[in-house]
Amino acid sequence: MLTGVQILLLGGDARQLEVIRKLTELDATVTVVGFEGLHSPLDGAIKAELEPTLFDAIDALLLPAVGTDDTGLIPAVFSDRELKLTEEHIKRLPKHCKVYAGMAKPYLRQLCNNEQIELIELFDRDDVAIYNSIPTAEGALMMAIQNTDITIHGSASMVLGFGRTGFTLARTLQGLGANVLVGVRRTEHFARALEMGFKPFYIKDLVSFARNIDLLFNTIPTMIVTAQIIANLPSRAVIIDLASKPGGTDFRFAEKRGIKAMLAPGLPGVVAPKTAGRIIAECLCQLILDDSTERGNGI
Amino acid sequence: MLTGVQILLLGGDARQLEVIRKLTELDATVTVVGFEGLHSPLDGAIKAELEPTLFDAIDALLLPAVGTDDTGLIPAVFSDRELKLTEEHIKRLPKHCKVYAGMAKPYLRQLCNNEQIELIELFDRDDVAIYNSIPTAEGALMMAIQNTDITIHGSASMVLGFGRTGFTLARTLQGLGANVLVGVRRTEHFARALEMGFKPFYIKDLVSFARNIDLLFNTIPTMIVTAQIIANLPSRAVIIDLASKPGGTDFRFAEKRGIKAMLAPGLPGVVAPKTAGRIIAECLCQLILDDSTERGNGI
Repeated sequence: MLTGVQILLLGGDARQLEVIRKLTELDATVTVVGFEGLHSPLDGAIKAELEPTLFDAIDALLLPAVGTDDTGLIPAVFSDRELKLTEEHIKRLPKHCKVYAGMAKPYLRQLCNNEQIELIELFDRDDVAIYNSIPTAEGALMMAIQNTDITIHGSASMVLGFGRTGFTLARTLQGLGANVLVGVRRTEHFARALEMGFKPFYIKDLVSFARNIDLLFNTIPTMIVTAQIIANLPSRAVIIDLASKPGGTDFRFAEKRGIKAMLAPGLPGVVAPKTAGRIIAECLCQLILDDSTERGNGI
Repeated sequence: MLTGVQILLLGGDARQLEVIRKLTELDATVTVVGFEGLHSPLDGAIKAELEPTLFDAIDALLLPAVGTDDTGLIPAVFSDRELKLTEEHIKRLPKHCKVYAGMAKPYLRQLCNNEQIELIELFDRDDVAIYNSIPTAEGALMMAIQNTDITIHGSASMVLGFGRTGFTLARTLQGLGANVLVGVRRTEHFARALEMGFKPFYIKDLVSFARNIDLLFNTIPTMIVTAQIIANLPSRAVIIDLASKPGGTDFRFAEKRGIKAMLAPGLPGVVAPKTAGRIIAECLCQLILDDSTERGNGI
């Protein structure tokens, strides 16, 4: 339980509703800012305005999936007001307070660093990234079904990268009956992909495997689907890039060649906000619980 | 090869382009009506106006997936003109000529019956229905991803019917990691569903299994998802009805209860017209080839 733990949650979207629900279930004291436009009740959380005093005696500060923007603005879909996180806010935090966000821009990192406040980026965690890869793969699949005139079943689908997202996506495509090629860099990934019934190849040979595929899913966040690769794709191919912005595809060249290519980051919040919220909520609550237990034990 | 075989193809959509491509590849003589709005070339088929003389010396008459409507009108997405199939047309057909359509309304059946012309409804065939179940399942999946805020993975998904479509859909959902309940009537279907790792139940017990599911897919073309069943669904449930019009769901009551319910027949032509066209083309060409061989052998 989180009885007595003081939490301040600023902004966010439907995903944060799952976080609020879970925290109040565990009996934390939760103050939320940026939810005045929400009509449904908030399960015992306290709605407040953004006042500096809110930061004075809290144990955890929760920011949304994207944290803040480059100027400190916090996105809040349930509010029309501007929420800006400032140096003054962070200065007022107790030293033991931790700041949690999905990810952080340099602005937020700098603020926390200056005041020696610990910042935790949830999406960096392997477990969260693996859980998030499930809605990401389903979103990618939805886009593939929408943007092709063939079935995924029987298609030649290529997945670049065999990390947390690539692994899930390859399995998902295989589950639907696609012929799945997986582009890897590491010998152990080649071995695992082969064991799982995929057709692995090394990324250095990408150009020679590109000639006859229907779908290309990229999960690697560096420029990898270059003009040279795109020039070798059949004209029917569709590129779905799941890497973080700006993706790993030469979109300008794809458009020039008339190849459908789309960047699709942030799919979990789009296709499955409830599941995505639960993923964040489960992880957050465990971290706050661990932190609270540690402090209770005199550290 | 279909050298010398005379074929008349009337109306249809993108799927018929695959049929035309395949027939001309096999060297049939193909005359098409209802394609004047199509800008791309038609692979050697002859475009014509709807004239009674076209029907005089043909071996096969091909109609679109839906055949005609109740008054004989043939849908033709590549044409603005009205195409109406009349008694005069069918009277002019040589007696050995066969009429092929995806399915037929009473109007078309009556016409063919009166003139003792054999009518073949492709979608009645088990093989075609099984191939078509693949794009149907992918379309259903797309709708499920779009219309829920959770992932299919980990969801409680119910499939009613374990026939050609239900079987494929249950496997597809399982491939994505859903917990799949399958409603069956026959003991051998119960056994097979259990063997495949689904959770089978008998349709007569449907109401007691409805209480905690996220998604309900119906494939049974009779009223089965009744008001009583809908009253027992959780409010988050989404119903996707894949049975032929008017489906097997009490849509009026679903709306009243605020449960999302949608009828989705004809998904193959929507989500994968190229694959759907190939399915029809493969089957048609084989049937026409068999028929031509039979007649060539003096029957």
